[in-house]
Amino acid sequence: MSEAMTDTVHDVIVVGSGVSGLSAAVYAARADLEPLVLEGPEPGGQLTLTTDVENYLGFPDGIGGMELIQNGKEQAKRFGAEFTHGTVERATLEERPFELELSNGDVLRTRALIVASGASARWVGAENEDELMGYGLSTCATCDGAFHRGDDVLVIGGGDSAMEEALFLAKFAESVTIVHRRGELRASEIMADRAREHEDIEFRWNTELEALHGSKEEGLTGATLISHPDGHPTEKADNGVDVDRETVDVGGVFYGIGHTPNTEFLEGTGVERDSDGYIQTESDDEGRATTHTAVDGVFAAGDVADSRYRQAITAAGTGSMAALDAEDYLETLEHEQSAPAMAPEQ
Amino acid sequence: MSEAMTDTVHDVIVVGSGVSGLSAAVYAARADLEPLVLEGPEPGGQLTLTTDVENYLGFPDGIGGMELIQNGKEQAKRFGAEFTHGTVERATLEERPFELELSNGDVLRTRALIVASGASARWVGAENEDELMGYGLSTCATCDGAFHRGDDVLVIGGGDSAMEEALFLAKFAESVTIVHRRGELRASEIMADRAREHEDIEFRWNTELEALHGSKEEGLTGATLISHPDGHPTEKADNGVDVDRETVDVGGVFYGIGHTPNTEFLEGTGVERDSDGYIQTESDDEGRATTHTAVDGVFAAGDVADSRYRQAITAAGTGSMAALDAEDYLETLEHEQSAPAMAPEQ
Repeated sequence: MSEAMTDTVHDVIVVGSGVSGLSAAVYAARADLEPLVLEGPEPGGQLTLTTDVENYLGFPDGIGGMELIQNGKEQAKRFGAEFTHGTVERATLEERPFELELSNGDVLRTRALIVASGASARWVGAENEDELMGYGLSTCATCDGAFHRGDDVLVIGGGDSAMEEALFLAKFAESVTIVHRRGELRASEIMADRAREHEDIEFRWNTELEALHGSKEEGLTGATLISHPDGHPTEKADNGVDVDRETVDVGGVFYGIGHTPNTEFLEGTGVERDSDGYIQTESDDEGRATTHTAVDGVFAAGDVADSRYRQAITAAGTGSMAALDAEDYLETLEHEQSAPAMAPEQ
Repeated sequence: MSEAMTDTVHDVIVVGSGVSGLSAAVYAARADLEPLVLEGPEPGGQLTLTTDVENYLGFPDGIGGMELIQNGKEQAKRFGAEFTHGTVERATLEERPFELELSNGDVLRTRALIVASGASARWVGAENEDELMGYGLSTCATCDGAFHRGDDVLVIGGGDSAMEEALFLAKFAESVTIVHRRGELRASEIMADRAREHEDIEFRWNTELEALHGSKEEGLTGATLISHPDGHPTEKADNGVDVDRETVDVGGVFYGIGHTPNTEFLEGTGVERDSDGYIQTESDDEGRATTHTAVDGVFAAGDVADSRYRQAITAAGTGSMAALDAEDYLETLEHEQSAPAMAPEQ
């Protein structure tokens, strides 16, 4: 391990290369901090799963998710940001500089750390989902709902996320069917009520998504659903129990089974997370939101610290905030180190 | 007054057409809320004073401030946002729907209100500042500092804003001179110390900026400074006292005398503001930052609620948050109104 450790101490390492990481990199690089950006297992983050982004301010005709990411990377590089592939296995944040151990054994050291490792939408595991993600299959109704005016769409899930997606989609879609593997929802009462009372929302109980049909060229065209009166049909089918199988024509399928923030590598550090694993950021003395975490010098940006909004534009915003906070932190650090020892207060 | 009041009740009115207002409009329009955007006395907001924006993620070669605003407006219109000129004189927020009285006497009514009226950078009042703003004269070092590598620049002001601007500029500029009208700073001790100890930062005490030289074509080339040993030279010159006058060659001038949030029309409403007039937003039950103000149904986005970061990309982020919060609010409202009267709890 120590063989792979160099003497280099970075000013700023940005963990994650999605929108928030790139925006942090642009700001940090432009402030001459020469940030190193670690591209993890999903370089570019969730936006790379989206074909068209219509709601990111500045692009009247929309922009491809991948194109926005490539633009951002080019922009960050232009100001001197460096990129390398690497997944952080473990972070040691008790001492300064911080140490990050990567999955290949390398150890990186940095004065300030920006965590922008995002959250990964949970996938169902249905056939063809890799192929059709971004082509009619989506994990974000707010992002992609407007593309489905007049379509029949499915929403997979039974919690608050699924209800929210369904209610949003009901504005555009001809019909919305919530597909849930059990016979009752686990959503909060209020969200469940709203979905149940909506005239354009239907439910298919004890049902799961088995396969998606269509292609990148023609988009998603249908879905195969399996069901069993006692629920959890996939599990039953796997155990040899007979299940019902039906293929339906749909123009869109939305996964609403939640996200998992990528914060496992912070386990055991002082960085505070909520019960779902999202990083908790702190307010400043004047009560204003910041990107500071519970560990001085560690900042969080993007979906990894945002279970509420999760938009590309909000992630870009908090990315820049994290870089400004990191810059301020490094300046204070430098000032403290260069200042003469203070006389004790009288 | 009542003659100008129509029966129309809007779902969402967005006050302000800068980056945050436009981003809110894109999101609200895309959610089919048909937002009405009020363009106040500075349509497009502060970004229209900037020539090149290099740090807004998505544009590797930068984008003109005016161009970004025009793009955003086109984008919002594409989804159905409407724009009208109007400055809010007074807001009545105690009853529903809210009422906004415009300076032309018109009264608008809305169920949800997004305040994105921004903050205006204070200007010195020097000769030619209208002409050269954005062409070497700037109110934002973070935005424009990187354009001044190797330049001699002036920073006008003596508070924390000026010290921050100077310290940031010292990374790029050949020299930074802080021009202050008095003989001592009013910045905080720590910020003043940092500026004083920096080898590339100098001070001109008891000095003010009288005029700027240059043109849009060649950019800013110089500045005329006036000084008087007892301070406040402009005031003295106005009273016929002799002052010293000197013209210096500089490549950039930065105003660091602060911003004023445009929140006067909220005086007397329940919307809470801090001592400088910035709107205070609230956290949700889980401690996450939101755009909710102290008045239910009123949301704040952009610089009007952000005295800390003040970036185009952060304003765009909070704009989208405000629209999502407003959408959620309206959905709850609708649900409450349509729900049957509840039986009292047993």
